[in-house]
Amino acid sequence: MKGFKFHGIDAGIKHGNQADLGIIFSEKPATLAAVFTKNKIIAAPVILGKEKLKQGVCQAVLVNSGNANCFTGEKGLKDAIDSSNMVAKAFGISSEFVIVSSTGVIGLPLPMENFEKGIPLLIKEIDSGNIDNFAKAILTTDKTTKKVITKGVIKGKGFTITGVAKGSGMIKPDMATMLAFICTDINISSSVLQPILHKSCDSSFNRICVDGDTSTNDTVICLANGMSQAFVEDIDDIVIFQKSLDHVLFDLSKKIVKDGEGATKLAKIIVKGAQNPKDAFMAAQTIADSNLVKTALFGEDPNWGRIVAAAGRSGAQVVMEQIDLKFDDVLIVDKGQWCGKDAEIKANLVLKNNEYEIILDLNIGNFEDYFLFCDFSQEYVTINANYRS
Amino acid sequence: MKGFKFHGIDAGIKHGNQADLGIIFSEKPATLAAVFTKNKIIAAPVILGKEKLKQGVCQAVLVNSGNANCFTGEKGLKDAIDSSNMVAKAFGISSEFVIVSSTGVIGLPLPMENFEKGIPLLIKEIDSGNIDNFAKAILTTDKTTKKVITKGVIKGKGFTITGVAKGSGMIKPDMATMLAFICTDINISSSVLQPILHKSCDSSFNRICVDGDTSTNDTVICLANGMSQAFVEDIDDIVIFQKSLDHVLFDLSKKIVKDGEGATKLAKIIVKGAQNPKDAFMAAQTIADSNLVKTALFGEDPNWGRIVAAAGRSGAQVVMEQIDLKFDDVLIVDKGQWCGKDAEIKANLVLKNNEYEIILDLNIGNFEDYFLFCDFSQEYVTINANYRS
Repeated sequence: MKGFKFHGIDAGIKHGNQADLGIIFSEKPATLAAVFTKNKIIAAPVILGKEKLKQGVCQAVLVNSGNANCFTGEKGLKDAIDSSNMVAKAFGISSEFVIVSSTGVIGLPLPMENFEKGIPLLIKEIDSGNIDNFAKAILTTDKTTKKVITKGVIKGKGFTITGVAKGSGMIKPDMATMLAFICTDINISSSVLQPILHKSCDSSFNRICVDGDTSTNDTVICLANGMSQAFVEDIDDIVIFQKSLDHVLFDLSKKIVKDGEGATKLAKIIVKGAQNPKDAFMAAQTIADSNLVKTALFGEDPNWGRIVAAAGRSGAQVVMEQIDLKFDDVLIVDKGQWCGKDAEIKANLVLKNNEYEIILDLNIGNFEDYFLFCDFSQEYVTINANYRS
Repeated sequence: MKGFKFHGIDAGIKHGNQADLGIIFSEKPATLAAVFTKNKIIAAPVILGKEKLKQGVCQAVLVNSGNANCFTGEKGLKDAIDSSNMVAKAFGISSEFVIVSSTGVIGLPLPMENFEKGIPLLIKEIDSGNIDNFAKAILTTDKTTKKVITKGVIKGKGFTITGVAKGSGMIKPDMATMLAFICTDINISSSVLQPILHKSCDSSFNRICVDGDTSTNDTVICLANGMSQAFVEDIDDIVIFQKSLDHVLFDLSKKIVKDGEGATKLAKIIVKGAQNPKDAFMAAQTIADSNLVKTALFGEDPNWGRIVAAAGRSGAQVVMEQIDLKFDDVLIVDKGQWCGKDAEIKANLVLKNNEYEIILDLNIGNFEDYFLFCDFSQEYVTINANYRS
């Protein structure tokens, strides 16, 4: 992909020898779009990022893991501004063109000495860096890096979209607790890019759940530097680009759920036949959020009673006698009737897989929605009981 | 307490040698009040119970554990009616005066042969039974029985309230997943008792959280047989009786949280200074519901960032710079500022206790609410991954 550089180093922000400071640099100032957390407690870099978004241009993104720079008051905001100034100075660009992003423990002051030492080193070494260094530097409890690259063609001109994300716990829609950085060499205006990004987020990061908690730092940043020949000019171009971006974000969101803290299963709950879109969303989300459903999936137990009970408390209209429920293609509830022990044995086999779909048909309307989610294991508790120690 | 008999036996409904069928019998038909689950998927006994509540009189309550008789269609409803008929026949009373209640696995048919054998035995032996037999028979994953007895005086006449409850998982307000049976010898009309019971539930069972799931079977039943000399006649009497009932229900709800699946800690989150009652409720509930807060408490980690982040996503109005947070009397956040490492060490000592309060003062209004909740351990996952096997 043309005109983007990536790097990541160990700047000593996290314990141990782990990369924790990353940079994205675009040779040309890029069109900027971004989506931020809806949590009312927001981190300093998010406050600053929302300001930067107004101008719609960005050339460099600095990301640290290990410290969220949230609930850090005026000092936190100053630290975010100071670190973006350091990046601007090192690249010789305006600090208006620099965005910063943080993830990690809430409430501790940013260790600025690590930034002072780390930023010059990061930028000095940038030509020897690559996207994998960057992808590692933004991780917290993640076990794997998350990267998706796709190519598209608009009116005969090729373009590339590269997405990198982190996220493993504190994952719930609006937004999920994650950071995602999307770079593309397409030529597109900020006013067109922003709604496209929102739409892609809605069908990806806003449709995943690990543990039902929403972070203070969630951020999706998209940079388009226009260095390919591909232009987004008309509605056909938008459709093509939207589809490519949807693909990148959906795949990234799937990777986040797969790497959910302690997760052993990746499930997709599809709610069909709802009376309205909101009901379909609420039922799917409540099921994806239910600790009892998630622990049953961990135990490979097709405990469909917990699934229908979650739908029943979701606020969605449900009529018990109308409900069908399937694990992949195994029907376990047919118009409100349990299909018996043979169906249960077959469903248990489905749940032994690592990935499957659960299809709940309410059969009282025409609306559908879905969520990607993971199971819930003892390891989730272990990770989060000891997160700060 | 006058005129109530209790018993419980092993009728073979649950695996192993465990009591699973219980009865309450009042010598005289008692005034009935009840509160049921708000889940839209409701169990057969709840459907039936709502009907019985209309007449406001009850003399016998049959409860089984091990099977929820939920999502069991027309057969389930017939089974519930049949079992109440069996009880009525054995006591020689009208089946209109019998309520049935079930708790356990959702979706399996009620094993009626066990009821046919068990009910006559239960009733034959009732004079040798006691409230502890009953309290054991209604348990599922509970580790302890839950019983609270209180005495009060109205205009010089004594009365007693005895409450028994079960509940350990699937616990969240509206209602929590639990059954509670309250017996009193006071003389009170149904139209007065029902709102008093609702009010007591609001400050007890609707203010507890174990895991955020809501059951299909939740039921609180209150029987008042009027066999003491105490009458509820005027507003002063109501105030006295309300206070006694509040005490019984609050203590029972506390016992449920303490016995929460895998729980090692009992915490009370108090949200103060909210702009309106709904905000106080939402913030308290969201914190009590947060897996990340609950796992931190299990790890004895005063991870206050997760608490304020949960308040931030709750929908309540919050202003970061106004927030105070305390663990018991240890201030950890002062007007949005972290109080430093010494405070953190002191807070850690508080979290080593088995019971404590967390006080979040939003400092932007005058409204307050609370929740009782427990921590979240690996054992919760173990219990619920293997619940049906």
